[in-house]
Amino acid sequence: MAAWQGDEFGLIARFFRPLAAGTPGALGLTDDAAIVGVGADEEMVITTDALVAGVHFLADDPADLVARKALRTNLSDLAAMGAAPLGYTLAAILPSPVDADWLAAFAAGLAADQAEFGIGLLGGDTTTTPGPLTLSITALGRIRRGRYLSRGGARPGDDVWVSGSIGDAWLGLQLLQGRMIAVDTEAQAALVGRYRLPVPRLALGQRLVGVATGALDVSDGLLADLGHLCEVSGVDATVSLDRVPLSATARRQVRKDQRLTLSLLAGGDDYELVFTAPPEAAPTVAAIAGELGLAATRIGQTAGVADGKPRVRVIDAAGQPVEAGNGGWQHFRGDGRS
Amino acid sequence: MAAWQGDEFGLIARFFRPLAAGTPGALGLTDDAAIVGVGADEEMVITTDALVAGVHFLADDPADLVARKALRTNLSDLAAMGAAPLGYTLAAILPSPVDADWLAAFAAGLAADQAEFGIGLLGGDTTTTPGPLTLSITALGRIRRGRYLSRGGARPGDDVWVSGSIGDAWLGLQLLQGRMIAVDTEAQAALVGRYRLPVPRLALGQRLVGVATGALDVSDGLLADLGHLCEVSGVDATVSLDRVPLSATARRQVRKDQRLTLSLLAGGDDYELVFTAPPEAAPTVAAIAGELGLAATRIGQTAGVADGKPRVRVIDAAGQPVEAGNGGWQHFRGDGRS
Repeated sequence: MAAWQGDEFGLIARFFRPLAAGTPGALGLTDDAAIVGVGADEEMVITTDALVAGVHFLADDPADLVARKALRTNLSDLAAMGAAPLGYTLAAILPSPVDADWLAAFAAGLAADQAEFGIGLLGGDTTTTPGPLTLSITALGRIRRGRYLSRGGARPGDDVWVSGSIGDAWLGLQLLQGRMIAVDTEAQAALVGRYRLPVPRLALGQRLVGVATGALDVSDGLLADLGHLCEVSGVDATVSLDRVPLSATARRQVRKDQRLTLSLLAGGDDYELVFTAPPEAAPTVAAIAGELGLAATRIGQTAGVADGKPRVRVIDAAGQPVEAGNGGWQHFRGDGRS
Repeated sequence: MAAWQGDEFGLIARFFRPLAAGTPGALGLTDDAAIVGVGADEEMVITTDALVAGVHFLADDPADLVARKALRTNLSDLAAMGAAPLGYTLAAILPSPVDADWLAAFAAGLAADQAEFGIGLLGGDTTTTPGPLTLSITALGRIRRGRYLSRGGARPGDDVWVSGSIGDAWLGLQLLQGRMIAVDTEAQAALVGRYRLPVPRLALGQRLVGVATGALDVSDGLLADLGHLCEVSGVDATVSLDRVPLSATARRQVRKDQRLTLSLLAGGDDYELVFTAPPEAAPTVAAIAGELGLAATRIGQTAGVADGKPRVRVIDAAGQPVEAGNGGWQHFRGDGRS
């Protein structure tokens, strides 16, 4: 570790100002706030996520990947609303003395993702803490006025869809935590990559506006997050266990241990979109997914609430109910991700 | 302390959802992000501030006042840009177990200030930490397109102005830290109030757009913050010590100990606006201040940079230079406020 020798202004100038260089409204990070414009027929979308070292990421995770995941989890929230990203603010709450090497790698990670997603740093705050390194990112996006996805629009009889594959990030976390899984090196890298560097489904979210009735991104686990959608929409949902899209690696693991399937569905950190659409929209959804080169899989249906409280049921290939446990419904499991 | 027994969703529903009730775009805090609209001829202003218990506020400060000060320091940044506040997001990073009583008082404080400033909670994140309680607030405001105050517009020959009075918050902090100052109970309450519950100068900031050439809010200390303005604008400034507006209580303290004056100028937490304007705008500034029932005092002038680097000079009543020390220029003084 190289302790940062300068003051806060030097630190901002060295590590953060370059990240705002392409964003005129950031005013070079020298002002009290940033200016953001949207078109006359647009609205702004805003989301905030906080991450704590040792809670949301491992203290020895590579700094560039911590940065990129922090940014991407916010972009994933924008994706779930169907918004196009505009920029972000960052509160960097750093243990003292500040590790300049760590911060340089962290800023490099942000720079890489800014280029990848066409966004810039708008502003923020830097301070020290006697506690663990803590990050709070607020991302801004834009939508055409009134045109967004929400969790509240699912109707009984909708199909339930999910993008990509589910459970790889959880398997990646198992690997990182030393719970050995017999997979080859290449597959290991892929799983760890899914955990460390999720891909926000921005294009899919934007294309689903007007097609999907409800949507959100899978952070807490497929069943838990679908549960949130059901709760806000006031519907039940049934998920067919055998239809949930798994990667080839995940399928191999499940063949060895059937009980693993529910862990994959509860694991979270997938940052895929789970969404609902009426059955007649299925060809449109399939066409959008095809154009984006992304899998979209129908995994179940919604229905009216059967017994007072919206519920997610899981069934097996024979249509028999599967006991899914709390399926991640519990929050404050020592993480409180959202 | 009453430990919160429920989960994160229950906590959000209990403490934070009521704060979003009047804000349709918050979508009841049930979605991935919030929607914010601005008029066709408007732009959005965004600012983020983080606060750490034991660093930016005392761990035993009343929770409602912690909430209100956290919100107000952000609103003060909007004031310094000349923006009208729209709403805010909150990342509440809480030690576990979560103190429900503290959180109830905290939410009550936010509710009080939401009513006072006509804004609502838009969204955010709640998580636990093994470290100290940490808050990150992002405030949104709006301006007419291109019409804002910045730190970069001061020109040589401008007057330097400051609103209200300077140093009361610092005296309040001395009282809270048990450094006795012989003032009566009423004066004590006023000083502590200035420290704990700053008043963002929103109306003044908005009225100064098009009048002031440069502006920012005094958080780090009058001399330090004026230094930031000078640095960004590329000007020097001279401040007449005897013209800096002090409250009657502060004046009495200074009469007892002349050396105190520089502490008041370096103390910070004033959340007054320091701004520059050309001499011919003086009657306009005075008229605006008069209409708002707020003092605005000319404390000095700007000039071209004399020796390579923008500087703030302090002079006494006789025009003699006063050694102002670092005057708060140093950051990362264990706080890193901004």
